[in-house]
Amino acid sequence: MVSDLSKFMDAVREKTPLVHHITNYVTVNDCANICICSGGSPVMTDAEEDVVDMSRIASAVVLNMGTLNRRTVDSMQLAGSVAKKNGVPVLFDAVGAGATQYRNMVAESIITKLRPDVIKGNSGEISFLAGVVGGVRGVDSTSTVDNIGELVLGLAKKYECIVVATGKEDYVSDGKSLYVLSNGSDYQGCVSGTGCMLSSVLGSYIGANGVSICAIIAGITAFNVAAEKAESDCKGPGSFKVALFDQLFKLKSDEMAAKAKVRKI
Amino acid sequence: MVSDLSKFMDAVREKTPLVHHITNYVTVNDCANICICSGGSPVMTDAEEDVVDMSRIASAVVLNMGTLNRRTVDSMQLAGSVAKKNGVPVLFDAVGAGATQYRNMVAESIITKLRPDVIKGNSGEISFLAGVVGGVRGVDSTSTVDNIGELVLGLAKKYECIVVATGKEDYVSDGKSLYVLSNGSDYQGCVSGTGCMLSSVLGSYIGANGVSICAIIAGITAFNVAAEKAESDCKGPGSFKVALFDQLFKLKSDEMAAKAKVRKI
Amino acid sequence: MVSDLSKFMDAVREKTPLVHHITNYVTVNDCANICICSGGSPVMTDAEEDVVDMSRIASAVVLNMGTLNRRTVDSMQLAGSVAKKNGVPVLFDAVGAGATQYRNMVAESIITKLRPDVIKGNSGEISFLAGVVGGVRGVDSTSTVDNIGELVLGLAKKYECIVVATGKEDYVSDGKSLYVLSNGSDYQGCVSGTGCMLSSVLGSYIGANGVSICAIIAGITAFNVAAEKAESDCKGPGSFKVALFDQLFKLKSDEMAAKAKVRKI
Repeated sequence: MVSDLSKFMDAVREKTPLVHHITNYVTVNDCANICICSGGSPVMTDAEEDVVDMSRIASAVVLNMGTLNRRTVDSMQLAGSVAKKNGVPVLFDAVGAGATQYRNMVAESIITKLRPDVIKGNSGEISFLAGVVGGVRGVDSTSTVDNIGELVLGLAKKYECIVVATGKEDYVSDGKSLYVLSNGSDYQGCVSGTGCMLSSVLGSYIGANGVSICAIIAGITAFNVAAEKAESDCKGPGSFKVALFDQLFKLKSDEMAAKAKVRKI
Repeated sequence: MVSDLSKFMDAVREKTPLVHHITNYVTVNDCANICICSGGSPVMTDAEEDVVDMSRIASAVVLNMGTLNRRTVDSMQLAGSVAKKNGVPVLFDAVGAGATQYRNMVAESIITKLRPDVIKGNSGEISFLAGVVGGVRGVDSTSTVDNIGELVLGLAKKYECIVVATGKEDYVSDGKSLYVLSNGSDYQGCVSGTGCMLSSVLGSYIGANGVSICAIIAGITAFNVAAEKAESDCKGPGSFKVALFDQLFKLKSDEMAAKAKVRKI
Repeated sequence: MVSDLSKFMDAVREKTPLVHHITNYVTVNDCANICICSGGSPVMTDAEEDVVDMSRIASAVVLNMGTLNRRTVDSMQLAGSVAKKNGVPVLFDAVGAGATQYRNMVAESIITKLRPDVIKGNSGEISFLAGVVGGVRGVDSTSTVDNIGELVLGLAKKYECIVVATGKEDYVSDGKSLYVLSNGSDYQGCVSGTGCMLSSVLGSYIGANGVSICAIIAGITAFNVAAEKAESDCKGPGSFKVALFDQLFKLKSDEMAAKAKVRKI
């Protein structure tokens, strides 16, 4: 499978998929720029009046509850349902699930009502969603969850979707197979929003390739290989982030595929 | 005319005009920083209770509908009308016009009710506003519009204002003359919000110099010459954006004027 | 006293305090990243439904009125009162106080009702709050206030809290002592949000160390020494900001303490 990853990257760059985001105001600029660097075309809008038209013409919709409020949560539900009706893939990033009652309620509602095609979070968030009270504190991934692979597989099976749990290693499952991905840099933990940025990259990959576990694995690997290259070209978290944009933009698909560390478990 | 461009840049740096923005949350930080680097002093606030006082003391008001909603659209109308009453120049950046019904309605309302002094967009947005259904997709400038110069001139004549259409080449008209500007870097298309950033720079230029086609041409040229210099000092879109701030900040007015590529057509 | 500053920095890095922000959408990303680089763990959320749970588990709460509106002002009051009830330190950054009636009203209400543990602003904002009509224009620190030290001391005494007024020199008082701090770089005035970023750093310092004038002095000094190092490693405001993150992240506590320029006056 790994030998085919380059095709997914090539497709993103050929098709320039339009990725509609309803996302948080903390990391939104980095999300827009990384989406461009991945080969996509980002659009961010969250007014109820606007999201119906935008979700219809989008190649993928990314919903991220980093800074949620009643107005934007309503818009997420609306944008997501329009996308689903029109066959547009929906990715949900469950930022901060487990940290507050409100987030838990919103996450549950989006997952059970919208049935996103991809559910993504760090290991703490995903283990909370899987029904385990994880060590979620704020929106950081501080907990170590021993059986995270099992939880990812179970959640993917339950909701018939792809589930991604990020961390030192990233776990991906479509409910049948389970993969562990080992690329990346420790600096990703020192920059706010690298998780959100990954969601935007994945939006490009499912927008151009359709929803599949291979498209998701390719997107994560592209982002994480770029992070490895950025690490060797930086002086700290500030210059790491700058280099991450540069490196993803310039990354060749065959280099990405060659450096991929993907194991089926 | 081109020989005079340096004066407009010098005036911005002498006067440090206060530029009040009601803009989108995607690129707002880059707008604030580029406004500073251009010589202006940015302020961003969008509460109805706040914008009246702020628009009154501002040297220019920049309205950008990148991420619009009912509350901020009301604030744009309010801020704009206070500015107009007080002789403060208003620039409107019609981000995403043509992409959704809501955007079209808002853009039309702002243009016809407020009568901004400057209307700015990419070629797709401007051609939509000019009544041509352009190839607007999301908020990118992906379309090629053959007769964009004609459309810019027509729109400027109709609304008795200055119209700017950005792209590989930028078109500017005050309804009488039409100019085409050819500075810039391809990297501007690889960074989210370079259009928004240009609006903030133009806010500084009309804030310090008053509204004139020369002030607008000087502002666009300063930004685009800085972009050319940034391109030769970068490794990709991430470091290009960083260099763009540095280069505009350091750009000498005589160098800007010497490098200007401005043609009257 | 100065010899002890390193301990406060060490404590932040050991404890990774969770800093809950309700802040403006202009500089929020830089606030999140500088909070990480200082050793803290940032969280940003402003929905009424969310802030109660978040303020309870936070180590510190930072309220910043840069881009205020009715909804977020209500959330600030709510988050602040929950924090106070739970013994969580609250810092208030009075961005733009003096510039508009609305800001003045909100600032007064937060200061008198919430009684924040730390009030921070630039010299114009603080002198306005101290009852002097300062030269506040927009949100910049353009005024020179001759007796700023006296005003800081008086405000700290009146509200029984710590007051910080930033500028070329920074003044800090707890109502008893008054300190003037002289580290920093001129480039801080060329980047939007360096004041907001400092508030996030201070959130980390009071979150890890509790509220004390020494913790505040250590936090300001860490940020300003990092700025000095960033200045010597940059080409302009864009690369200065990038270097500021790198330098604060890597700054050693003993180097910080050795470079501290702190005078009791």
